[in-house]
Parts: sequence; C-alpha cells; structure tokens
Amino acid sequence: MSIQSINARNQFRGKVKEIIEGPVVSEIDVDTPFGIVTSVITTRSVKELKLAVGTEVLALVKATEVSIAKL
Amino acid sequence: MSIQSINARNQFRGKVKEIIEGPVVSEIDVDTPFGIVTSVITTRSVKELKLAVGTEVLALVKATEVSIAKL
Amino acid sequence: MSIQSINARNQFRGKVKEIIEGPVVSEIDVDTPFGIVTSVITTRSVKELKLAVGTEVLALVKATEVSIAKL
Amino acid sequence: MSIQSINARNQFRGKVKEIIEGPVVSEIDVDTPFGIVTSVITTRSVKELKLAVGTEVLALVKATEVSIAKL
Amino acid sequence: MSIQSINARNQFRGKVKEIIEGPVVSEIDVDTPFGIVTSVITTRSVKELKLAVGTEVLALVKATEVSIAKL
Amino acid sequence: MSIQSINARNQFRGKVKEIIEGPVVSEIDVDTPFGIVTSVITTRSVKELKLAVGTEVLALVKATEVSIAKL
Repeated sequence: MSIQSINARNQFRGKVKEIIEGPVVSEIDVDTPFGIVTSVITTRSVKELKLAVGTEVLALVKATEVSIAKL
Repeated sequence: MSIQSINARNQFRGKVKEIIEGPVVSEIDVDTPFGIVTSVITTRSVKELKLAVGTEVLALVKATEVSIAKL
Repeated sequence: MSIQSINARNQFRGKVKEIIEGPVVSEIDVDTPFGIVTSVITTRSVKELKLAVGTEVLALVKATEVSIAKL
Repeated sequence: MSIQSINARNQFRGKVKEIIEGPVVSEIDVDTPFGIVTSVITTRSVKELKLAVGTEVLALVKATEVSIAKL
Repeated sequence: MSIQSINARNQFRGKVKEIIEGPVVSEIDVDTPFGIVTSVITTRSVKELKLAVGTEVLALVKATEVSIAKL
Repeated sequence: MSIQSINARNQFRGKVKEIIEGPVVSEIDVDTPFGIVTSVITTRSVKELKLAVGTEVLALVKATEVSIAKL
C-alpha cells in the first residue's frame, strides 16, 4: 500500500548517513540539504523498512512538534 | 535567563516569514536557507516571544518526534 | 513523490467522517472498522491533502507517542 | 489516586502481547481490536505499572500526535 | 472505566485556573503548587471532561516529550 | 549561539539527579520544585550537553504535549 501524500508539512529528503542500533530504539542520521536530521524510531521499524547507510528517505515532522526559540 | 544549549538535535535557523494567528494556537512559517519549516505554538507564546515577520528564530525538533519514510 | 512505507508502527485505515475546521488547525475524525481515530493537523494540510468527508486515509502514530494506562 | 477520565481521544483497549525490554526504554505491543498498537515507554514505567504479557491496558494517543496520510 | 495508573512519569496535580476556548483546540492553564502548567487539548475533550475553572486535574507528560536545556 | 527565550510554556528548572545511559537514548531525572521531572533524550545529546549529576538544567515541554486527566 503506497502513500500518495502526508500531512507532515516538514519533509526533509536525504540519505541515511549513520544508524546507531539499540535493543528497542535506534538513531537514524539523515544527510539532507538542511544539514543532518536525527530521528529515533523503533529498531523493529529500522528492520521492516530495511534501512541501511545510503537508503533514500524522507524525515517527517508534524508542525505541532516544532518549537521556536528566539536568538 | 538565557539558555546556553539545548538537547534538540534538529535545529533550523531562519527568519519568520508568515504568522497565521488563531485564538489558541498560531502557525509560524520559518524561512530557512533550505526551505520553509512550519511550527504550531500557542498564540500566547507568539506574543511573549514578540514574534513578527522577519524575527530571527531557531526551529527545534526532538529526535523522538521525527518519522522516517522510505521513498 | 509517493512514499513506499513509513516507520509509524501504528497505522489505522479508514474514511474521513468529520472535519472541524479552525483558522490554524483542524480536527479530522477518521472512521475505522474498530472505532473513530481523531487527529489534529494544520488547516493548510487539510487543504493541500484535499481532505473531505469520505476521503480514504491512513491515521499514523509514532510508537514513542503512545502512553500506556493500567485498568 | 485513580483517574476518572483523560483527554486522550484515542484510547485502544487491549492486552499486552509482548514486551521488549531495553536499559532505558521498552517496547510494549498491545493486542487490540484495531490490531497491534505499539508503544515505547520508559523501562521504569514498565516496572512501576508491573506490566507483563496478558496485562489489561489502555493505549492512549493525543489527537495532536496523529498524522494523516492520503492513500 | 477508571484508570488505575498511567506510564506518564511526569504528573502535575492542580486546579484549572483558566480556559481559552478555540473552535478546535483550547488552552488549559493548571495552577499547581509550584507554578502554572499549560496544556493544549481538543475543545471536544474539554467538553467531554467537563473542565471548568476550579476543576481538579492531573497534567501528564510522557518522558520522551521533555527536552533538556543547559543554563 | 545562545538562545534568549523559547516558546515552551512549561519550563522546570532544576539539577540533574540521575542519568540512566542507554546505547541510543538516556533517561535524565531532574530534581525541580515540582518534584522529579523525567526526560528521555538521545545519548549523543547527553554527551554534547556534557550533562552530569548536579548540572543545572531547564526541562522544557510544549503545551501541545501535555495531557489532562480528571481525578
């Protein structure tokens, strides 16, 4: 079942640069034009998605999860 | 009280491009060198931070909030 | 750009039953075979996704967002 | 102190099917009428709630955490 | 159905001090012995929970949602 | 780059009381006037922020992440 589009307004396209695998969750570092975007997902998902260094992915963030800091 | 650093690994620096103000929450669109990052925060925070079009900000996202999709 | 698969382990397929539109965010109630799943997304996303009553959608939740209560 | 009700609109009742325990966080798979709902919570909470395979639980999700994808 | 206990490690007990109602989401300010805790939930939940100024509540936060900043 | 202020309405100032380090994420328990506030962040962030028992920190929570339960 392929997804046509998703509501996440913040989509960062890139390639997996590094995977740090833990017993329950893993860190996925994605190399994007915005810089490195880091994600923590379940290790089961890493396996189901067959993620590896170099895999093309989209890092997605809901707008309600984004904080704003003033410089 | 100024903050030295924060754990959010994903930090996107930019300028506020647009604010859509609602009665409870507002949408803040941040123009970064690589695209727009959208945030929804409380309208009270918008006022307390004195955000306006052009304000320099940092959009921050916790790694646990980032999803990964395979293309 | 179509997405092949996503890490969100919790995926609930259904049809949009109701949309409550606000100026910034909207509530989307999705009718699934096992009950209603409710989502709040930006009103801009509702428009970009062209959501309407009856649209077939997938409601997605990251495992790190799910709390557990004991009965 | 028992809780009468909670704001999470999305409540999935079921039984714990599997626990994958890690040093900091654990994965809890809950068998519900909606299918398996997966949660990641702290391992301390797993112990404090005395969760085990078969425990009756409620998996709870805030509406603001639910994303919508179009098929 | 009453809940015995929940995994959210961060629980702040207090009384509702103010409700700012919007068409989709509302802001709930909870007066706790140590300061105000602010929550945004759906306006439907506010009504279902029959929240009003003075209602005794528990504000709950999952540990994965808490960020850490260094001063 | 120091941050002047941030939108997170819920800020709990305190000292790190305990760190449980995992391979990917770590639990940080912060002793605040509100009681212990628990956070789960990436182990990389723990190292980058040089967190240790006794470090003065701010635990931050977005209002959209706070749930409300009725007692």
